[in-house]
Amino acid sequence: MKAVGIVVEYNPFHNGHLYHLQQSKETAGADIAIAVMSGNFLQRGEPALVSKWSRTKMALQGGVDIVVELPYAFATQKAETFANGAVSILEALHCDSLCFGSESGSTESFHEVIDFLESNQEEYDRFVKEYLKKGYSYPKATSLAFHQLSGSEQLVDLSKPNNILGVQYVKAIKDQKAAMVPKTIQRISADYHDEEFSSQSIASATSIRKSIFTNKETNELKPFVPNTTWIHLNQYLYDYNQFHHWETYFPYLKYTILTMSKEELRGIYEMEEGLENRIFSNILHSPSFQAFMTSIKTKRYTWTRLQRLAVHILTRTTKNQMNDVIQASYIRLLGLSKGGQKYLNQMKKTVPIPIVSKLSSFEDPLITLDIKAAYAYSMAYNEPVTSAEIKNEFSIPPIRFDESENIFL
Amino acid sequence: MKAVGIVVEYNPFHNGHLYHLQQSKETAGADIAIAVMSGNFLQRGEPALVSKWSRTKMALQGGVDIVVELPYAFATQKAETFANGAVSILEALHCDSLCFGSESGSTESFHEVIDFLESNQEEYDRFVKEYLKKGYSYPKATSLAFHQLSGSEQLVDLSKPNNILGVQYVKAIKDQKAAMVPKTIQRISADYHDEEFSSQSIASATSIRKSIFTNKETNELKPFVPNTTWIHLNQYLYDYNQFHHWETYFPYLKYTILTMSKEELRGIYEMEEGLENRIFSNILHSPSFQAFMTSIKTKRYTWTRLQRLAVHILTRTTKNQMNDVIQASYIRLLGLSKGGQKYLNQMKKTVPIPIVSKLSSFEDPLITLDIKAAYAYSMAYNEPVTSAEIKNEFSIPPIRFDESENIFL
Repeated sequence: MKAVGIVVEYNPFHNGHLYHLQQSKETAGADIAIAVMSGNFLQRGEPALVSKWSRTKMALQGGVDIVVELPYAFATQKAETFANGAVSILEALHCDSLCFGSESGSTESFHEVIDFLESNQEEYDRFVKEYLKKGYSYPKATSLAFHQLSGSEQLVDLSKPNNILGVQYVKAIKDQKAAMVPKTIQRISADYHDEEFSSQSIASATSIRKSIFTNKETNELKPFVPNTTWIHLNQYLYDYNQFHHWETYFPYLKYTILTMSKEELRGIYEMEEGLENRIFSNILHSPSFQAFMTSIKTKRYTWTRLQRLAVHILTRTTKNQMNDVIQASYIRLLGLSKGGQKYLNQMKKTVPIPIVSKLSSFEDPLITLDIKAAYAYSMAYNEPVTSAEIKNEFSIPPIRFDESENIFL
Repeated sequence: MKAVGIVVEYNPFHNGHLYHLQQSKETAGADIAIAVMSGNFLQRGEPALVSKWSRTKMALQGGVDIVVELPYAFATQKAETFANGAVSILEALHCDSLCFGSESGSTESFHEVIDFLESNQEEYDRFVKEYLKKGYSYPKATSLAFHQLSGSEQLVDLSKPNNILGVQYVKAIKDQKAAMVPKTIQRISADYHDEEFSSQSIASATSIRKSIFTNKETNELKPFVPNTTWIHLNQYLYDYNQFHHWETYFPYLKYTILTMSKEELRGIYEMEEGLENRIFSNILHSPSFQAFMTSIKTKRYTWTRLQRLAVHILTRTTKNQMNDVIQASYIRLLGLSKGGQKYLNQMKKTVPIPIVSKLSSFEDPLITLDIKAAYAYSMAYNEPVTSAEIKNEFSIPPIRFDESENIFL
């Protein structure tokens, strides 16, 4: 059996994801698709709209065969670390290829970017440093440095988040000497960052979330998501009476910052020298997350970077805990189709790291971060649901799906 | 001018407190009364029912002339430390006497207890150790040791909280070589721990709080509190839509325990070796504070002791921060009558420690604990009230009261 790997957040799973998934299977000539999916907190430093269990169901009904969790230590990081973690997991699961969405639809240009950067490393680093000194954010500085170095002929538009990730996937595969082949699917219609619906059936996850939180209901997004997603979203709303949003977590963020010592704040992962004072004095009188973020934002720090820092404060993730994270040390299984189960039965003896089906049976320094993230995430529910969800996190086995009958087992 | 000092929580100010206050002034022949009052969290390890500002108003209208805050470092401690802090503040304010409520109404027996204990220190310590080994709580062990040592002729009933405090006040005055004279007023009618109303006009603060939380309204307690208290309680309910209760803080307690490392938990003040594991594993699935407390309670730890520990977790107060606290290093002024102002004007040059009128203008290692307590306490409000209350904590001056006109200035 041949497997294609994809890296996803599915926040939530929409028609663009469905298209990418189907195209990936076809392009790779794969029997099954394996998705490594972020858990409770996402790369942009936000809580996932709905739980990973609900999103796993969307993925399985959408056609994914195996859903595994991208550990917190990678999911809430800059593109390079994020990609390294995802690639290490898909490689461990013996995927033949990794298929990512991009603007160009050709992997060649990505290889060229990497080759170009490697042969101009010193100069590139110097340019990046200069732009950083001028007060640009890191992503902006790298994009400007690359542009300056490569002249007018930009191989890949590095201002696009999907392209930045693409470069890092290809680089991670190369660096890790993975057997996987990188492939790319040209994205259609919606830009990653689009906030408004822009096509008849494809919309960005950002615009879908915006619609949900603005309109407080789900009807408007019906054209843009598979019916199964729509049902799971409504089920979630029915079960939990909410979608997860930073504002719900803001009291905990505020409480943590105010009761921590400055020294502890300085120890939080991604906290830069002096930033802790800015954060402390601004949260004191900020009545909302939005107000707080606006108050601490500068040209130097991207919104995303600051949101990720806020997630690390919320989960109390320290610099020590995140030290030297390059490859995953376990694979947490969230969901399986029958095809996925068959694949796993064939493969599992040769998977080089532990496959974790139940949290209660496994210990690892990195998984403690996933567990803390689950604790923090569960605070958005109210008791007794919080306690029940925490119990679930430890006790429920992976979700099983019969794709021929379209039923969960 | 002659001042009598009293040590209070006023949670809330009731008829028994009014009686004690009036008797204290009379017995001491004092022109004014100075109350050192606990702030946000109380000796039994509970959040104060209403803010210290509201309780200061009750005190001023009840006849207190100067209200100062007993710092967190003393207010949330066992009787000995509690008494040391309170005595050091009243002595610094040049009170002529400290007048406390007790069951006996005579200070002589308290002196005798102290003398008796001092001359039998070694044996007493040995008995206490033995009872602790047998699994008794510390208060129970001391009471049993004292009883065993003194034989049948118990000088003071040390199972009564007011008597335990009384012994410690007298001892602190002696130990600190304070000029203050200890005096005592015999308490009337209600036992400290009484949970039901037991007399026509006097009820314990415990029974008053129980009535408030059980009946969700304030009418039933009207006979037991001065009308001014009744008005302030209703005003608070109108302004904030709540009285403060441990259950409101429970999500923050749970969140903190779950996201802290075991090492950090062990560093919390009053955390004993091994207790952190019991706390961690029991909070995981406790849906309420009551359920949590019940689950961790053993014969060895009193409910009060465990509640105080919970307060220290909530405020993230560490062993390092509470180290070697014996006497207050500042006096935080909460409220003043005209008489109190006059007294303070005469005295303030000879007060040996800083008098803090506004929090924003003063720094001290111990006051950071008060500030953290205020932050934690304010989480029970919702935004934007939380932010407004935090701002208040730093900016509002002491409450001024004109006792001849019965108006706040």
